[in-house]
Amino acid sequence: MPLLTRIRGPRDLDRLSPEQLEQLAEEIRTFLVEAVSKTGGHLGPNLGVVELTIALHRVFESPKDKVLWDTGHQSYVHKLLTGRQDFTRLKMKDGLSGYPSQAESEHDVIENSHASTVLGWADGLAKANEVLDRDDHVVAVIGDGALTGGMAWEALNNIADAKDRPLVIVVNDNERSYAPTIGGLANHLATLRTTDGYERFLARGKDILERTPVVGRPLYETLHGAKKGLKDFIAPQGMFEDLGLKYVGPIDGHDIEALESALARAKRFGGPVIVHCLTEKGRGYQPALQDEADRFHAVGKIHPDTGLPIASSGADWTSVFGEEMVKLGREREDIVAITAAMLQPVGLEKFAKSFPDRVYDVGIAEQHGAVSAAGLATGGLHPVFAVYATFLNRAFDQVLMDVALHRCGVTFVLDRAGITGTDGASHNGMWDMSILQVVPGLRLAAPRDADQVRAQLREAVEVDDAPTVVRFSKGAVGPAVPAVGRVGGMDVLREPGTDTPDVLLVSVGALAPMCLEIADLLDKQGISTTVVDPRWVKPVDEAMAPLAERHRVVVTVEDNSRVGGVGSTIAQALRDAGVDVPLRDFGIPPRFLDHASRKEVMAEIGLTAPDIARQVTGLVSRIDGRFSDADAGAVDSVEPARD
Amino acid sequence: MPLLTRIRGPRDLDRLSPEQLEQLAEEIRTFLVEAVSKTGGHLGPNLGVVELTIALHRVFESPKDKVLWDTGHQSYVHKLLTGRQDFTRLKMKDGLSGYPSQAESEHDVIENSHASTVLGWADGLAKANEVLDRDDHVVAVIGDGALTGGMAWEALNNIADAKDRPLVIVVNDNERSYAPTIGGLANHLATLRTTDGYERFLARGKDILERTPVVGRPLYETLHGAKKGLKDFIAPQGMFEDLGLKYVGPIDGHDIEALESALARAKRFGGPVIVHCLTEKGRGYQPALQDEADRFHAVGKIHPDTGLPIASSGADWTSVFGEEMVKLGREREDIVAITAAMLQPVGLEKFAKSFPDRVYDVGIAEQHGAVSAAGLATGGLHPVFAVYATFLNRAFDQVLMDVALHRCGVTFVLDRAGITGTDGASHNGMWDMSILQVVPGLRLAAPRDADQVRAQLREAVEVDDAPTVVRFSKGAVGPAVPAVGRVGGMDVLREPGTDTPDVLLVSVGALAPMCLEIADLLDKQGISTTVVDPRWVKPVDEAMAPLAERHRVVVTVEDNSRVGGVGSTIAQALRDAGVDVPLRDFGIPPRFLDHASRKEVMAEIGLTAPDIARQVTGLVSRIDGRFSDADAGAVDSVEPARD
Repeated sequence: MPLLTRIRGPRDLDRLSPEQLEQLAEEIRTFLVEAVSKTGGHLGPNLGVVELTIALHRVFESPKDKVLWDTGHQSYVHKLLTGRQDFTRLKMKDGLSGYPSQAESEHDVIENSHASTVLGWADGLAKANEVLDRDDHVVAVIGDGALTGGMAWEALNNIADAKDRPLVIVVNDNERSYAPTIGGLANHLATLRTTDGYERFLARGKDILERTPVVGRPLYETLHGAKKGLKDFIAPQGMFEDLGLKYVGPIDGHDIEALESALARAKRFGGPVIVHCLTEKGRGYQPALQDEADRFHAVGKIHPDTGLPIASSGADWTSVFGEEMVKLGREREDIVAITAAMLQPVGLEKFAKSFPDRVYDVGIAEQHGAVSAAGLATGGLHPVFAVYATFLNRAFDQVLMDVALHRCGVTFVLDRAGITGTDGASHNGMWDMSILQVVPGLRLAAPRDADQVRAQLREAVEVDDAPTVVRFSKGAVGPAVPAVGRVGGMDVLREPGTDTPDVLLVSVGALAPMCLEIADLLDKQGISTTVVDPRWVKPVDEAMAPLAERHRVVVTVEDNSRVGGVGSTIAQALRDAGVDVPLRDFGIPPRFLDHASRKEVMAEIGLTAPDIARQVTGLVSRIDGRFSDADAGAVDSVEPARD
Repeated sequence: MPLLTRIRGPRDLDRLSPEQLEQLAEEIRTFLVEAVSKTGGHLGPNLGVVELTIALHRVFESPKDKVLWDTGHQSYVHKLLTGRQDFTRLKMKDGLSGYPSQAESEHDVIENSHASTVLGWADGLAKANEVLDRDDHVVAVIGDGALTGGMAWEALNNIADAKDRPLVIVVNDNERSYAPTIGGLANHLATLRTTDGYERFLARGKDILERTPVVGRPLYETLHGAKKGLKDFIAPQGMFEDLGLKYVGPIDGHDIEALESALARAKRFGGPVIVHCLTEKGRGYQPALQDEADRFHAVGKIHPDTGLPIASSGADWTSVFGEEMVKLGREREDIVAITAAMLQPVGLEKFAKSFPDRVYDVGIAEQHGAVSAAGLATGGLHPVFAVYATFLNRAFDQVLMDVALHRCGVTFVLDRAGITGTDGASHNGMWDMSILQVVPGLRLAAPRDADQVRAQLREAVEVDDAPTVVRFSKGAVGPAVPAVGRVGGMDVLREPGTDTPDVLLVSVGALAPMCLEIADLLDKQGISTTVVDPRWVKPVDEAMAPLAERHRVVVTVEDNSRVGGVGSTIAQALRDAGVDVPLRDFGIPPRFLDHASRKEVMAEIGLTAPDIARQVTGLVSRIDGRFSDADAGAVDSVEPARD
């Protein structure tokens, strides 16, 4: 990599010749395939933006100018050009983040991996430049897929309103979001692509008209005098110009010279302008290009030549859900499925193949996924909206005000719930069991194993007058955890072996094996423990309070923010029932989590069996007075939940 | 009202002559002004849709066809035509809701008053019609203002994707949302208005070309053979057609015959179609038309002839905030303000007059309000986003992932927090103090009086590395409630008068006077009470746990959902500190609240001083064992929080 290794920052690009830039692009592609094959990561998107990123950093002066990336997984090339070339620990603890990171570089701004935010950020930064009278530039790169999100529309509407506030929007159009982009916008972008560019279209129109023989003078001039002028009269302006945004394009997104020329013009324009770039996701890497489903959007560790996964994983939560959906689809014709541009990642591919007329890809539009589900339910169907837990946050208002208020039978299946780890702060699904607690009527299931995913999904779709939620983790699903008893609607996973048990341990979802391990550890300390899985964590089971009352301490363990989570809600239910048994709730502390493996994150926040067992032992000893204070003092108290 | 009183349902419209329909429209306007003058309500929007509603109900067959209203405050005429003509208790307990209501009528679907939802509902209902093979129609009425919301865009993108799925979208274009509509979309709608309609424009273009003498044959035919066809070549399609939506309009929204003709054509079209209607907000009522700010969008009780308010109210929370903002704006040039199409209702009008270059109306686009605030803060300014508490739900993900994750100094001012009452379920601001608890780093203030609004707003804008929230109630602000002491950062409002006090009563925000009343009532029962106002309810003050430990019972009272609210959070903080003093948390039960006055709602849910005092007395008696069990049994236990 003779050229790449000499690039320490964007300005090192300035002195490279066109040939060297081409070579650099090649070196970067080779680097990306080799590096990401070893670590896993977002390969396809970054292969698509190599030339675009080079051109951006030659035309704009980061960090004075702000170069902003939507859904930052397309920022690997940007990292390489801004002094970060050690990808050996990409997405691993203490390694590079998979997204931009302000802690890593002054060239990074938006760390958020949720799509469609960049135009809002850009609008704010451009407004600040205006108020503070700075002549810095703001350039925002957004994919055509992310333009389907409502935030993008809200931002475009605002950006277009200020004709002399400079802002460059680069539409990175690869005709895909994760999968091919859907909707009217995608069709419109296709039209813009085939019209060969506004500028050339205008020229062609003028040419036709000038060649047309008309009495007296060319028709061009005749029409030029018409009320709305030639431009409005013959050019297909396209919706961006309709909104008031200057449109430049389409530009070949792999032609550095063309890109630089377009970006330089846009930079000079002095108002909001869209530069429409056509790129190819997975560019230059055959295995990616041959993958029609998602062009190697995000990969695990793969063999760099073949693109085949190195380790094949066992059954995962997603596929257990996906297969049960196919069965349900066969049994019930009223079941329809919704995805927000992630058909494959959420496991709906098989359902879509079996029932193509009963699946809706709404684009990167979680709000629409939820509100249209309310419509579908009101129309007599039962929609199942499968979505990453963290992305449902986008649709909180719609779950509350459209689905729940209207008592619609809609099932939300939250994939990647809890700590997901390597994708960092914004991919953890650690908020759902807190914020959804406030939604009246909503029922929330946290299945502990594959059998429970199937069973609880079936229970969920039976509910036709309220929203239901089934949330599960990322990755491989563990072995079945059998129930040894039942109390109310709750599964008992372990009996205490005594009539006067010490601890009621409430296990939520996939943490069941860990909770059983905690119970074993407590057992060794002479602390008898009942382990119960509520299955449905909202509403709190009627049997919870009486069960809790038969114990000395209640301990809850959840893979969710401690704040307002399952533990808090059970605590409230116990208070309401007048059961003042001391309770301790374990979960994720109220802070954003740095990227690392799920296991490393859990160790760091003390969500491990030994950590929890030690704390519960200390607590029981203090409450019971069974041990002396001196013994108890050796055990750490629970960390206060400060944020 | 000879005609109106004979209309019992939409089909009664069928036999009316054109003249009678005109007369009916007049009767409806007279009715609305008289009725809404007496009760208060949304006057301007409904005066604008009289003819449109008549035409809709003549062309479509509700309830088989679904007639859907965005932001249902424009549904009064619809109510009148569907058998609901008793407006004497509009928005009052047991009277008509101010929005559509499924409980009121089979003609109503969407009860939600949050804007921009209707197209998503319509898309879902149209999809259900398709799956279930029904030939029912779906027609959605949306204002031009609501089109600025991202949900509308997401829905349009989906609706346009299915060319043969019938769906009629009526754009009720009055050039206003609450105030004049902003942004590129508004400009585009203006263009459509001035181009005199697509159909006529097309005809004119054809006319010009046909009259142009060309060798051999008319130019029209020559061009008609061009690659993309005449239509694409000469017509300004407008962004709706760019997206793939058939566009009809603009139509005079006060010409019943023209409306019926357009709607009937749209109904027959067999695919998604937009009918662009031009209406006048406040039509036919001079006082409304003369009010440039918001055309009598929503009024209190007014004199029907003059439109002047009957009762003048004293200082309200909103204006206290608004005036302090002007002072802050003078002191700090970096303070900018954001509103989501509600400059006047959130009290930013004076700020806007003083600092026109430092206020941003982003449209009905709370997501953009929040994310652009992150950009503004990163750019070096301190944005204050003033918004109704219930509408911030739309921006939860952006508060969490854009503002908080990036440690941006943005202040959210939540107006109409807590129980607002007469606007019903979706206007109560009862969720913010729950869902915002999970946001790391966020600080939340609940000022108890005008002085505290001013003081805490100032404290909030001093924070430059985290989101801050200041939330207050609707309506008149009460008298100042002085502090008698300070513990940590908390104000003591009442000392217990003993060294061994019984109850620590934690008062949140505007409920301070009620909490003092509770303390007095407890005093009479011999229960000594400390009343403390935490001021900042998130994070929980470090002094809370030690203070709680000096009492026998902790009681929290908040104007917010009990679930995950301030009480729950304090309970967790006490657990974390190992302080196992019994706590009882009073607030709003986890259900949607029917419309009624704030006072009536609070009485219904037991959020009154006598109710709470009675429950606390019972609790203390049981815990202390001070009274016999028989005495204590006479007191109700706290209702369990079931939903």
